[in-house]
Amino acid sequence: MNIEERVSVLRNRINKGLTELFEEKSPESLYAPMKHLLDAGGKRLRPLLVIFTCEAAGGTVEKCFNASLAIELMHTFTLVHDDIMDNDDTRRGTPSVHKKWDIPTAILAGDGLVTLAYQVLLNTESSRINEVLKSFTNGLLILCEGQALDKDLENREKPSLDSYMEMISKKTGKLIEVCCDIGAILGGADNNDRVLLKEFGSRIGRAFQIQDDVLDIFSGEKITGKPVASDIIQKKNTYLTVHLWNRGNEEIIKRFTSFWGRQQLAQSDIDEIRRFFRETGSLESAKEIINNDLDYAVKIIQSLKCSVDKTSLKYIVDILKDRSY
Amino acid sequence: MNIEERVSVLRNRINKGLTELFEEKSPESLYAPMKHLLDAGGKRLRPLLVIFTCEAAGGTVEKCFNASLAIELMHTFTLVHDDIMDNDDTRRGTPSVHKKWDIPTAILAGDGLVTLAYQVLLNTESSRINEVLKSFTNGLLILCEGQALDKDLENREKPSLDSYMEMISKKTGKLIEVCCDIGAILGGADNNDRVLLKEFGSRIGRAFQIQDDVLDIFSGEKITGKPVASDIIQKKNTYLTVHLWNRGNEEIIKRFTSFWGRQQLAQSDIDEIRRFFRETGSLESAKEIINNDLDYAVKIIQSLKCSVDKTSLKYIVDILKDRSY
Repeated sequence: MNIEERVSVLRNRINKGLTELFEEKSPESLYAPMKHLLDAGGKRLRPLLVIFTCEAAGGTVEKCFNASLAIELMHTFTLVHDDIMDNDDTRRGTPSVHKKWDIPTAILAGDGLVTLAYQVLLNTESSRINEVLKSFTNGLLILCEGQALDKDLENREKPSLDSYMEMISKKTGKLIEVCCDIGAILGGADNNDRVLLKEFGSRIGRAFQIQDDVLDIFSGEKITGKPVASDIIQKKNTYLTVHLWNRGNEEIIKRFTSFWGRQQLAQSDIDEIRRFFRETGSLESAKEIINNDLDYAVKIIQSLKCSVDKTSLKYIVDILKDRSY
Repeated sequence: MNIEERVSVLRNRINKGLTELFEEKSPESLYAPMKHLLDAGGKRLRPLLVIFTCEAAGGTVEKCFNASLAIELMHTFTLVHDDIMDNDDTRRGTPSVHKKWDIPTAILAGDGLVTLAYQVLLNTESSRINEVLKSFTNGLLILCEGQALDKDLENREKPSLDSYMEMISKKTGKLIEVCCDIGAILGGADNNDRVLLKEFGSRIGRAFQIQDDVLDIFSGEKITGKPVASDIIQKKNTYLTVHLWNRGNEEIIKRFTSFWGRQQLAQSDIDEIRRFFRETGSLESAKEIINNDLDYAVKIIQSLKCSVDKTSLKYIVDILKDRSY
């Protein structure tokens, strides 16, 4: 079985595992909204990362399967609540939970998802389960901090690049780091390899988020599922915009400000915005971080003592490298 | 030290423990709203229950102190999210979190509180920590189910008494049961005593909720902190109203319906409503359940094999008996 076939088999197994969690559960008014976004697809990148790091550390799918489901449930919990907080109407090509139902239902669905995540995680049989639970919990609290920092940034006129990097490392990077950490623990990694695998997660997590920022501007709706430059329409700061606020010349900033939060952007506007990001060096700076992080991630894979077969972790890096922008 | 003095000392210790959790935490935009309701007081009934059941089972405050704080954090999480769902503007005599800040902030504060609860709980040193975590998590999921059932009941014209009892046993009773279960586990109770202490929690939890229902109608604003009959103003079904919808005669139901959801109730209206609950036997039926549950709770205390000093658990029952209605 080549790696693509194996990923496909694992995705099916993860989806089946998630579906089974909801069998014979009631009331429907809680569990249907909990299940909604899980049914809407998703790449299952995070559970795959748990499995691949666990295997890299010498473990098996069985050892970390519940943990991989727990991570997807936790991730989905953050999506459900973030969509309410950010007032996002669609997610994964379907109405967000609070749009399909209402805000109270979506709040409760999120609460149910994070609780179910713990319930599933607690089914893990491992002598190191407490390390796993601590990593999971500490990660989740840092994720909440990241979400708060994100809201803080929205209210700041010219956030610094440092504060932006801190925010995304907490809001997006941390959960991906936790996937790798939990995989490492359950796979039986020694401390050295555990540190390396966490750093691997942290790097690809950051690359992933900055890619998202770039894709929003430089790719089409087909790839992101959102209108081009939706972050600018929504006045949502990204690596590109924070870089531009800090490094753009007066003229560019003045002109860019006129697009900020505008509800309709013509193709000529988008072309102009893209030109700003190129001229200010924002695009180049973003690409540099992404490439550095992904290169560093590959070096980490090579330096792992535990891992015999490095195919799967490299495959994850390759997927990220291939995201079109 | 008599029991009142001891409770006061323990409350101070719990409050100090809760305050210390927030020292040197940032960002303020996450931790200030998380702390808001904790600072607003509260009887700390749930952490006290953890401590008293732990002691009854042969343990010490030290063994269960973190768990007792975790329970209060989890309880506060449910209050923060419930206030958004129920659109309640005040809580513990202070603005609810979403009123003082906004809904996104309150959602995130709740998420932070439940995560912090797990973080604190995971600091518990016990060979039985996994039993504790499972009890905590299963309880929390049932609590979410109870909240969903509560919303379901709001939309039903004439809910049955059975469905009401199921809802409150999940929404209110379960968490109080979990307090006693966790105390029992950490105190080292054998299986028999653990079952008894859980049942103790379940009974006083139910009595506590039905007392709340009665107090809303039959006591003054000074005791509940809410306008008299606020449940009727908000069309919130309680034991009394569900009993009346099912057992009241046509004339009473017709007249009672005219008060249901009315924004202003005169003293004469309240007198009439009280008379309905007396005439239909709703008040008597509620009191019967409360008294039966509290009597049964006392019997359980007496039958515990583990407990030498039964003063504290009896004190809790006495507090509940003394709530004025």
